[in-house]
Amino acid sequence: MKKISLLGASGSIGLQTLDVLRAHKDSFELVAFSVGRNIDQARKIIQEFNPSLVSVQSKEDADILSGEYIGKTVIMHGAEGLVEVAVHPEADLLVNAVLGSVGLEPTLKAIQAGKTIAIANKETLVTAGHLVMEAAQKHNVSILPVDSEHSAIYQALQGEQHKNIERLVITASGGSFRDLSRSELDGVTVKDALNHPNWSMGAKITIDSASMMNKGLEVIEAKWLFDLPYDKIDVLQHRESIIHSMVEFHDSSVMAQLGTPDMRVPIQYALTYPDRFVHKTDRRLRLEEIGKLHFEKMDLERFRCLDFAYQAGRTGGTMPTVLNAANEAAVALFLNEQISFLAIESVIEKAMSSHQTVLNPDLETITAIDQETRSKILAEFKR
Amino acid sequence: MKKISLLGASGSIGLQTLDVLRAHKDSFELVAFSVGRNIDQARKIIQEFNPSLVSVQSKEDADILSGEYIGKTVIMHGAEGLVEVAVHPEADLLVNAVLGSVGLEPTLKAIQAGKTIAIANKETLVTAGHLVMEAAQKHNVSILPVDSEHSAIYQALQGEQHKNIERLVITASGGSFRDLSRSELDGVTVKDALNHPNWSMGAKITIDSASMMNKGLEVIEAKWLFDLPYDKIDVLQHRESIIHSMVEFHDSSVMAQLGTPDMRVPIQYALTYPDRFVHKTDRRLRLEEIGKLHFEKMDLERFRCLDFAYQAGRTGGTMPTVLNAANEAAVALFLNEQISFLAIESVIEKAMSSHQTVLNPDLETITAIDQETRSKILAEFKR
Repeated sequence: MKKISLLGASGSIGLQTLDVLRAHKDSFELVAFSVGRNIDQARKIIQEFNPSLVSVQSKEDADILSGEYIGKTVIMHGAEGLVEVAVHPEADLLVNAVLGSVGLEPTLKAIQAGKTIAIANKETLVTAGHLVMEAAQKHNVSILPVDSEHSAIYQALQGEQHKNIERLVITASGGSFRDLSRSELDGVTVKDALNHPNWSMGAKITIDSASMMNKGLEVIEAKWLFDLPYDKIDVLQHRESIIHSMVEFHDSSVMAQLGTPDMRVPIQYALTYPDRFVHKTDRRLRLEEIGKLHFEKMDLERFRCLDFAYQAGRTGGTMPTVLNAANEAAVALFLNEQISFLAIESVIEKAMSSHQTVLNPDLETITAIDQETRSKILAEFKR
Repeated sequence: MKKISLLGASGSIGLQTLDVLRAHKDSFELVAFSVGRNIDQARKIIQEFNPSLVSVQSKEDADILSGEYIGKTVIMHGAEGLVEVAVHPEADLLVNAVLGSVGLEPTLKAIQAGKTIAIANKETLVTAGHLVMEAAQKHNVSILPVDSEHSAIYQALQGEQHKNIERLVITASGGSFRDLSRSELDGVTVKDALNHPNWSMGAKITIDSASMMNKGLEVIEAKWLFDLPYDKIDVLQHRESIIHSMVEFHDSSVMAQLGTPDMRVPIQYALTYPDRFVHKTDRRLRLEEIGKLHFEKMDLERFRCLDFAYQAGRTGGTMPTVLNAANEAAVALFLNEQISFLAIESVIEKAMSSHQTVLNPDLETITAIDQETRSKILAEFKR
């Protein structure tokens, strides 16, 4: 029985993680989880999985739930609650699917506590990849990717040696706007952007897919997860999202992982690694039914966010933190209909160009620069 | 330094094996090889690689070469020579790229001598898979595939567990005649058939690609190499031959190996396994340049030879020997312009339907039935 703690249980990845646990009740036990404000969802999960610890965002919600589960489930709240879920003494593995930079500290604490990490929180690797991977190495802890792209690469690297890697090829569906020109992109609406062709995801990540920032953040995550320089990490447009990513080795052989888009597959892989459990689905990949797979060169001039991400990654230090924070602020402004879709790029570009990079930042510096970047942008667009 | 013996040095696979050895002279040493009648080629290989043992087909050729390399290279001939090359005391690994059923005994002897086997000789696994895999297990010897399809599967299985395999998907370009109907197939010539779209190979295997028998033999080989029942081995038409084959696991994840068609890649992989060496090529896979990959259901009614192979494999015992021998005889008749392309199927069908299967045959039985099948067919078409 593998014991699991889960940060971000009510989000898209969180709910699909629960699906996986539900499908394999004899193999997994949920010992702790967190949600934000969705305490109705928290109640349902407590009823079904009977964990010993739950954390919610506010003290008020924690007090309400505490009254309902006296003597059964401990209820905590806030940043402290997230850390306690992450380091729960019974847990073998932490699934970190919380959104935003609050995911960072719990990851580092869980690593120090020797937990295996299944990572779906982008900020952890984008802003603090150097701290996370150093800690993971020191505490001999595995960082297992949950993103379909990184999971594909992780799978393709099984039984292989790092020295033999020629390059990674991260595939990108191209998002909602893959067929639009720059001038067409200028007029797109929030509704247009939320209509992703292949994957069903949250609003923020769907916008990031459309702007290609999602791919940019994945490039930075890949750099840390797989310990490779940026010139060995390429992005390839592949509209069907069937090949989830690839590894080319120096003998010219390419290993790829394929499948019908279904996030439960990489989530389950992280939970069962190095084994694989059955995943019951009526959507197994049948390439003869799909007929054709398409591939195109990624256009860095059309998708400037991807270019920004390479730049931020190569600069290193606090620059990826600025990239990520500026993007989050800009996407919020777009979703709030305060700026246009292409203005997301301008906001990020401005934030990056005015930032003085701090190299090898500690957690406090990262958090400070993250906050500062957001505040500056939000102040500017306050209405 | 890994020491290599090579059966069939002057054939297509043999010559490309020598290319690999040539590219990595510091890592490999050719200690023994065989050719058939091409003693000019033998001389060139001796000059370049300076092996201690060479075997040729006829005593006459052996006598000629012996005189030329007195005190340098031992020259042997015939079936005994093949075995001596295979079990050469210095060799770590045998590449068996000889054509036909003469490849069988040397493989078994090399396994008994504890050599790692890189197998390109189809007859070995098709006709005696049960003997070969049993011996390999007993002597704890690895059987490494050289065919691009089986190499792809072998690569996709690295770091994976056998129990988690859902099915193998062997890809097939469709051969020279993939776009022809049955009635169009009836009139094709030898010249038409020898024009393979993706791979440059010998005449026999090019015809087998066009008739889909090559894929059928690969299905039988896969059964033995990967220890799976036939209902877990599927064939998928994929005209570009970029995905060389795939493994679907029971979690619905599919691992595939891709590359520009180049036999030196799987040959080198077998020689360097579990490591990978650099393969210098200007033909690295760039999917953005290829643009599209196509997949179609394999039509077993159009390609009856593939259906025969599944039938022969499922029947087991000596039936695959009959399938293979009848096919070789029929292809020879076609290349000799004695029968039509579609008559290859009729010859095989007749041979299989008149055969009384012997289950679990030993080497003598296999050889006897192989000979008997060929003689019967050749007698019938003698002119």
